[in-house]
Amino acid sequence: MLATTLLGLMRWSRAFIPTLRDDPADAEAVNHRLLVRGGFIRRLMAGSWSLLPLGMKVTKRIEQIIREEIDAIGGQEMLLPVVHPGEIWKKTGRWDDVEGILVKFTDRRDTDLLLAMTHEEIFSSIATELTSYRQLPQLWYHLQTKFRDEQRSKGGLLRVREFTMKDSYTFDIDEAGLAVQFDRHYDAYKKIFSRLGMKAIPVHASSGWMGGSESVEFMVESEAGEDDIAYCPSCEYAANTETATSRLTPIQDEPWDGDVERFATPGIKTIAALAEAFDFAAADRQIKSLLYMVGDEPVLLLLRGDHELMEQKLVDALETFEVRPAHEEEIVAALGAHAGSLGAVGLGGVRIIADPALRDRSNMTTGANEDDWHLRGVDLGRDIVVDTWLDMRLVAAGEACPECGEPLQVKRTIEVGHIFKLGTKFSEALGISVADEKGDERVVWMGSYGIGVGRNMAAIVESSFDESGIVWPISVAPYEAAITVVKMGDDATVTAADSLYEDLQSEGVDVIIDDRDERPGVKFADVELIGIPYRITVGPRGLADGTVEVMRRADGSVESIQVAEAASSVAAMIRRDRGE
Amino acid sequence: MLATTLLGLMRWSRAFIPTLRDDPADAEAVNHRLLVRGGFIRRLMAGSWSLLPLGMKVTKRIEQIIREEIDAIGGQEMLLPVVHPGEIWKKTGRWDDVEGILVKFTDRRDTDLLLAMTHEEIFSSIATELTSYRQLPQLWYHLQTKFRDEQRSKGGLLRVREFTMKDSYTFDIDEAGLAVQFDRHYDAYKKIFSRLGMKAIPVHASSGWMGGSESVEFMVESEAGEDDIAYCPSCEYAANTETATSRLTPIQDEPWDGDVERFATPGIKTIAALAEAFDFAAADRQIKSLLYMVGDEPVLLLLRGDHELMEQKLVDALETFEVRPAHEEEIVAALGAHAGSLGAVGLGGVRIIADPALRDRSNMTTGANEDDWHLRGVDLGRDIVVDTWLDMRLVAAGEACPECGEPLQVKRTIEVGHIFKLGTKFSEALGISVADEKGDERVVWMGSYGIGVGRNMAAIVESSFDESGIVWPISVAPYEAAITVVKMGDDATVTAADSLYEDLQSEGVDVIIDDRDERPGVKFADVELIGIPYRITVGPRGLADGTVEVMRRADGSVESIQVAEAASSVAAMIRRDRGE
Repeated sequence: MLATTLLGLMRWSRAFIPTLRDDPADAEAVNHRLLVRGGFIRRLMAGSWSLLPLGMKVTKRIEQIIREEIDAIGGQEMLLPVVHPGEIWKKTGRWDDVEGILVKFTDRRDTDLLLAMTHEEIFSSIATELTSYRQLPQLWYHLQTKFRDEQRSKGGLLRVREFTMKDSYTFDIDEAGLAVQFDRHYDAYKKIFSRLGMKAIPVHASSGWMGGSESVEFMVESEAGEDDIAYCPSCEYAANTETATSRLTPIQDEPWDGDVERFATPGIKTIAALAEAFDFAAADRQIKSLLYMVGDEPVLLLLRGDHELMEQKLVDALETFEVRPAHEEEIVAALGAHAGSLGAVGLGGVRIIADPALRDRSNMTTGANEDDWHLRGVDLGRDIVVDTWLDMRLVAAGEACPECGEPLQVKRTIEVGHIFKLGTKFSEALGISVADEKGDERVVWMGSYGIGVGRNMAAIVESSFDESGIVWPISVAPYEAAITVVKMGDDATVTAADSLYEDLQSEGVDVIIDDRDERPGVKFADVELIGIPYRITVGPRGLADGTVEVMRRADGSVESIQVAEAASSVAAMIRRDRGE
Repeated sequence: MLATTLLGLMRWSRAFIPTLRDDPADAEAVNHRLLVRGGFIRRLMAGSWSLLPLGMKVTKRIEQIIREEIDAIGGQEMLLPVVHPGEIWKKTGRWDDVEGILVKFTDRRDTDLLLAMTHEEIFSSIATELTSYRQLPQLWYHLQTKFRDEQRSKGGLLRVREFTMKDSYTFDIDEAGLAVQFDRHYDAYKKIFSRLGMKAIPVHASSGWMGGSESVEFMVESEAGEDDIAYCPSCEYAANTETATSRLTPIQDEPWDGDVERFATPGIKTIAALAEAFDFAAADRQIKSLLYMVGDEPVLLLLRGDHELMEQKLVDALETFEVRPAHEEEIVAALGAHAGSLGAVGLGGVRIIADPALRDRSNMTTGANEDDWHLRGVDLGRDIVVDTWLDMRLVAAGEACPECGEPLQVKRTIEVGHIFKLGTKFSEALGISVADEKGDERVVWMGSYGIGVGRNMAAIVESSFDESGIVWPISVAPYEAAITVVKMGDDATVTAADSLYEDLQSEGVDVIIDDRDERPGVKFADVELIGIPYRITVGPRGLADGTVEVMRRADGSVESIQVAEAASSVAAMIRRDRGE
């Protein structure tokens, strides 16, 4: 009777759970493979995914956890539009500054519009209504669609174009108030990721196109990630390699009394080739010279030969996104030689930025700004006029932690959250100020805090799967338990399964009953693929002994339980897993 | 203690509820006026609104009611993207067919994209995965943003450009299956609107650009609406005037033995002027002749002189949106005269469509297709070659109900929901078919069912307000009760209010405490403006008698209740209002 009256998702035979036997052809990332195969998501186009019923269930659970933790620190939920007027983005400068990923278009009246890639501008426009310090602090947030026209969208839900984000925004009378809200978010984010079953490492990060004074990213270790962090297992120093630093062992340069000496290097174009060809030119005794264009201006960047440039450090320090390697013809025009023979000795008219690892070095080798010629015996202090010293070096694994000196690790990670101290950038541009106690107008201090919902779903999968499929933590699993009916033709089995199903629902367990007319092997495989934490198998053989079989997905452990106790036992296990 | 530890919306002093004393200057509709003044919404740009915390609370309650009723008929919630590839819309023809309101743009790779104005195409693209009749029926839905670039957006949340819609889609093996799902939605929608506190009248409607065979709109009576319905109080016949019909009293034409007679009508351009000038030309004895362009073809429409054209009936019957009144020069080119002297007698080469109210009429008057001349003695059967008879008349109040003959009323209404039988239009275009019992491929039958969330919020306000503000039904109220603390400086008052606040929360009441340092008058006005169903006033005067004052917003009734019993009494009233 139950079987015929129940509608909806709880009966597998009625539900839309299109599992696939094979991996999608183009899937590289684990989350892409398993979420598609498990019937959670389907691709609509590049970087754009539909959430099927199971994907929606997981999403709603993730969103609920986020809501609870943001509400707990005083968040007020709102909902701001996805389509924005260009006008407000022009006031903050981002209409022009953000290239490529910002989708712009016009409406039937030729008004400039754009798709929200973030909501600082629009929340700020509402904050202009604030008039008094007594209304502060405020913490506003929403869960809303963003669209970013990324060049390459890949990795399943890791890097997409359309996604739902929880973004919150805080407004405070001063920097101290912002610090409090920032810290509260820091703690709330740690709780959120922990409830999502992930170990997230907070790291210092670049603020990128958000601007502002300080930002912390939350990173989950994964090969599928796109960010590297430098991490110290000893003192827990952690930073995105976009900002990370390290202590270097000082290098004792060999004495060289003479002047700079020019020597022929026919066909030698790389640091490695030069080091190979000349004893005195080990990579760490060379100067790496890279010509970059900053806007229209050529800038020569100098690094130690064995160091790599971290471009983001340059972007952050110069406060412009218009930074790129110079083209070959720009190099020849500025320096008179091709890449491979560049150098800064005696150079005039081109700005020189050097990494501090070169400071006080002498007896170095570098290009002569003449093809197939290099210089040796170069003394940084004597021979090169450095305009700016700037840390722009990519930290490498094994270098000493800047805090404690122990060797750093470099880990590939997924960014699951990012919090920013924006300061007064947006409030100044958009005129958000309130009267303080004395009646003086004060510009408010803002923070901005984001969590991508789909990105987190993907990150959970990337951190919790096995060869059979996904292993969801109970907090976000699409169902907490599945009842697998081994033989649908057998009345006793169906009756026992239905009764167990009803009992589990009464116990408050979110349970699905697999009443499909399929072989048990197919049903078992689907439950494991989908990653439901508990599977209860009801079949004639067990029932003959008065038992059902309970399998725990996380460790594969199997237990026989008396039918009469099955519902209360499984419910107890689930309550324990929930942390109740 | 409670006061200092609690964060979030429940303490008015901490919440963002920006009420305004004055109406916004441009507000015509009640919902616009009250939702803005009550701090529920703010306009971002034309037809685009941000939901502030109170607006979001109401929205979430409305959404929850919708979810519950759609889940109850077997709905599976999903979430499909807002940005669609143009490709799929080209397959159904709507990329070209839908003009103006469909926003099109391209991404960085010049791929055609559009903003979802509805989701038939994308849900259908997922339904192509269905392979067997055993997977049917299916009922999928989501609550997702739509964008329609309406020419005129007005009436607050009634006609906007960006909005959240619950749209569901059904897939069935045959027409009978579709009928079942359509009826289930019909019932679910009635429950939804009833739970939202509105009396919604289901009416037959035009399917417009959705196509399909049948559609029902749910209409709520309101002067702020944009739709008229014909309604019979006697038998409950109801139809949008876009499709409504009525029974007409037959007209007995006076005999006229002669031929058609031409007579001069200098300066007479209207039905009314002709009726005024000539005894024999009462409006209902004239033929109204309107030249229309259907695509590039001129078509002459004939109606009884006292009847109005309902253009949508023409659009529906001709199955094209390219229908418009002809321009003056097109009229002269086709008929040789200007509007005011047009007629169909002896006309060749122009298609003639006539309304059935003209059938068998004789001794009529009409234009002569010569400026300042008319014809009398026209016999429809003898003198005019009608190509198509088509009901295209706008029904008027007082005409007889087509079902029972009693006089019809015409009411202005808001459309709060619309359900469509789509048939196989989309499944044919996109190739959605499944194997039936015999293994034969069968195209599936689709339905589509929409409810605009913001539109419903607006309609609730339009149907339930008074001069002090909104009167929310308890089911969607932003809070169920407000505690107004009369004197924040008085310790005993604050303690009593805090304790009552705690008790009401324990009783499961959603309550806000107005702890602002404001005059009681301001606080009372805000609670009434915002429309919270119960206000409990805690002040020194009442407390001296051991009482608080409870006011019911719906009828303004006031009651004194002992402090000790206040929480349980108010909770009981609220449970009764909830229908528990």
